[in-house]
Amino acid sequence: MAIYRKTHWTSEIKPELDGKEVTLSGWVWEIRDVGRIKFIMLRDREGMVQVTVKRSSVSDETWDTVSRLSKEDVVSVRGIVRASKVAKTGVEVEPIEVRLLNKANPLPIDIWGNVDETMLDLRLRYRTVDLKRRSNVILFKALSEVVKAMRTTLYGYGFIEVFTPKIIATSTEGGAELFPVQYFERTAYLAQSPQLYKEELTASLERVFEIGPAYRAEKHDTTYHVNEFISVDAEAAFMNYRDVMSVLEDVIVESYRASVDLLSQIGREVRVPSKPFKVITYDDALSMLDKEGIKVKWGDDVPKEGLEALSRLIGEPFFIIHFPTMLRAFYTKPIEGDESRSESFDLVIDGMEVTSGSTRIHDKDELEKAMRARGLNPGNFSTHLEIYSWGMPPHAGWGLGLYRLMMVMAGVRNIREVILFPRDRYRLVP
Amino acid sequence: MAIYRKTHWTSEIKPELDGKEVTLSGWVWEIRDVGRIKFIMLRDREGMVQVTVKRSSVSDETWDTVSRLSKEDVVSVRGIVRASKVAKTGVEVEPIEVRLLNKANPLPIDIWGNVDETMLDLRLRYRTVDLKRRSNVILFKALSEVVKAMRTTLYGYGFIEVFTPKIIATSTEGGAELFPVQYFERTAYLAQSPQLYKEELTASLERVFEIGPAYRAEKHDTTYHVNEFISVDAEAAFMNYRDVMSVLEDVIVESYRASVDLLSQIGREVRVPSKPFKVITYDDALSMLDKEGIKVKWGDDVPKEGLEALSRLIGEPFFIIHFPTMLRAFYTKPIEGDESRSESFDLVIDGMEVTSGSTRIHDKDELEKAMRARGLNPGNFSTHLEIYSWGMPPHAGWGLGLYRLMMVMAGVRNIREVILFPRDRYRLVP
Repeated sequence: MAIYRKTHWTSEIKPELDGKEVTLSGWVWEIRDVGRIKFIMLRDREGMVQVTVKRSSVSDETWDTVSRLSKEDVVSVRGIVRASKVAKTGVEVEPIEVRLLNKANPLPIDIWGNVDETMLDLRLRYRTVDLKRRSNVILFKALSEVVKAMRTTLYGYGFIEVFTPKIIATSTEGGAELFPVQYFERTAYLAQSPQLYKEELTASLERVFEIGPAYRAEKHDTTYHVNEFISVDAEAAFMNYRDVMSVLEDVIVESYRASVDLLSQIGREVRVPSKPFKVITYDDALSMLDKEGIKVKWGDDVPKEGLEALSRLIGEPFFIIHFPTMLRAFYTKPIEGDESRSESFDLVIDGMEVTSGSTRIHDKDELEKAMRARGLNPGNFSTHLEIYSWGMPPHAGWGLGLYRLMMVMAGVRNIREVILFPRDRYRLVP
Repeated sequence: MAIYRKTHWTSEIKPELDGKEVTLSGWVWEIRDVGRIKFIMLRDREGMVQVTVKRSSVSDETWDTVSRLSKEDVVSVRGIVRASKVAKTGVEVEPIEVRLLNKANPLPIDIWGNVDETMLDLRLRYRTVDLKRRSNVILFKALSEVVKAMRTTLYGYGFIEVFTPKIIATSTEGGAELFPVQYFERTAYLAQSPQLYKEELTASLERVFEIGPAYRAEKHDTTYHVNEFISVDAEAAFMNYRDVMSVLEDVIVESYRASVDLLSQIGREVRVPSKPFKVITYDDALSMLDKEGIKVKWGDDVPKEGLEALSRLIGEPFFIIHFPTMLRAFYTKPIEGDESRSESFDLVIDGMEVTSGSTRIHDKDELEKAMRARGLNPGNFSTHLEIYSWGMPPHAGWGLGLYRLMMVMAGVRNIREVILFPRDRYRLVP
């Protein structure tokens, strides 16, 4: 075992441990010197604890080590926990030994003050340092909790986790622009989503989900687009759009639940939304927007400002359903008897489209027709289409932008804040 | 709610439900006709149940539908559960209504017999159909259970799940060949592993893991290499190689536990290995192999046949530790006082290298020296190296090939069997 392996996180050091020997490892947050006593505030991922070093009770070597410490040095402290009336947390650690594990130079950016949104570019340039900031540590702990909650919810509905290829032969889905990959002698592409694969898997595994990277080669320059993102995809046989909307509601509610405490630690108070979410049709949305002076032509997408206006009016997460069929991808099932509209939905939170989904077409002829209606050549989809002859079940599903959800939950203005190392039009490093 | 939404999986239909109305949806496995009674064996992901259709108790429409059914048709059955002494599972369903949801043509490959390994190419060509095979459904359920168990184990050790970019600017790690990506005006690459990112994250999140795709553009043509695979990566601050080996042991044991029941359903009896795993040094391995007539020069990698021989001798999962330093990547920490050997390990199961790991160098000067010793130019790593000046903790970690582990657990001969849609030198479709 490493001598610096911690026995406890700093947050676990409580007065109840009085008298116990512990090993803590972390970073020097602050060091104060009052002559023959020095106070080290030792930080790790989970919190902070005071280490009280008395000249009289440590070796010359440890005293010497402590005397030369400065901010962000990496140290390991072996010592005895002491309940204390003086220390802020009611507890301190009296070291037996303090080891300097790595000396730190002054940091290139501030990590002690509040997040400065205007300094985002600089912070991303030094992202590894920026991530030491307490609010970032908590944000990314929350993100981990959110995906954990999503999976638990989906397992509960009988979904199986799958991994589909991210290198694909052709631009099968149509629509988005793709990044080309040199795959040995051929040109391949990075998948924009696992859409066709997850649909195909409903024919065997019935209910599948995937949480993995997706790529769009679009030249966006907004606060809510990036070129590599994490897509949460679910697809289920023998369900329609209403059924998967209901699954999605639980996924969203559990995501909020999983992050509400952590986010409150960084001053973000979120309210867990209650089910069922409000549902409006696309036609409703257009009427509501019309009254707000925002004109959207039937058949056009609701623009960002329209989504924002609707969120202001509705005040909580809501679904827009029944989009014009031709506004959606070819695999979207039209409503029977009202074919110009579709069994589709978007989930909107705080003016942000977080999820899109629908019942999918499972009939081969209909699917071919839908491709042709969009100017796509069914011949390019032959290995996908053939599958519909061998027992394709009715199915439905959705794709959720993980970072978009995190962005609205955390209330940050730029999606890059919730991505460890974002990839955008101009950013490929670090 | 969709009319075909199932209330139960077929496996949930037990005699205790006698008299209850249920909706089941799935595929026709078999249909037998004894005049005025027809028996449908209805299959879904979880199992199979007998549907007994009596001419006298169904509508003309349902009788007509059932009369025209053939294998693999997609159907939905609403009916009453009846405990039955005659039916194999002690239970059957008497339908009120049977709907044909999608007609199936004869399948292009056999899914009823045992897996034919020699037909792998053909089976992969029709992978969506091949996945309907019961053994495949169970295999991929097991894979989902395995990643679930891995995450649960890692959460238990305080690891946070992270997502790092798969598009990277340069071939930072050295070694493996990379796939180039056209990233707008620049050439970027697909990441061969999250190695440098996960190391960087130990400076803030301390313990991180990632389960995501990784890419090697190597022209392998073996049964245990593919060009896109799922890498399970863990990295922890304030741990050394021994500490992360211990975490890994738990991850492996829990992976076996999670899949043992499922695998036994497809005739694969696995024994959950017990901790601690056997540990031999690289030098031990060479002596053992020498006695077996397999000569490996000190400093060379142990060849596949050597790993297989060692597995035969040892008979259970084992670690090889202390590899020659120069055999490992630049970030591998040499042993203090025996610098030609390193604090490194491989986990070998059934002759397969499943995991590699090590203590990493956390000192900037040492890291630069290690790069130079391997002919790498530290200037190409400047944004990675600079981080080591700002409080880089000692750390260690490993990378595990998910499909390799699944391959040895499931006892399949070709890694492609455990991948939904494998990507290799010649395979980019489906």
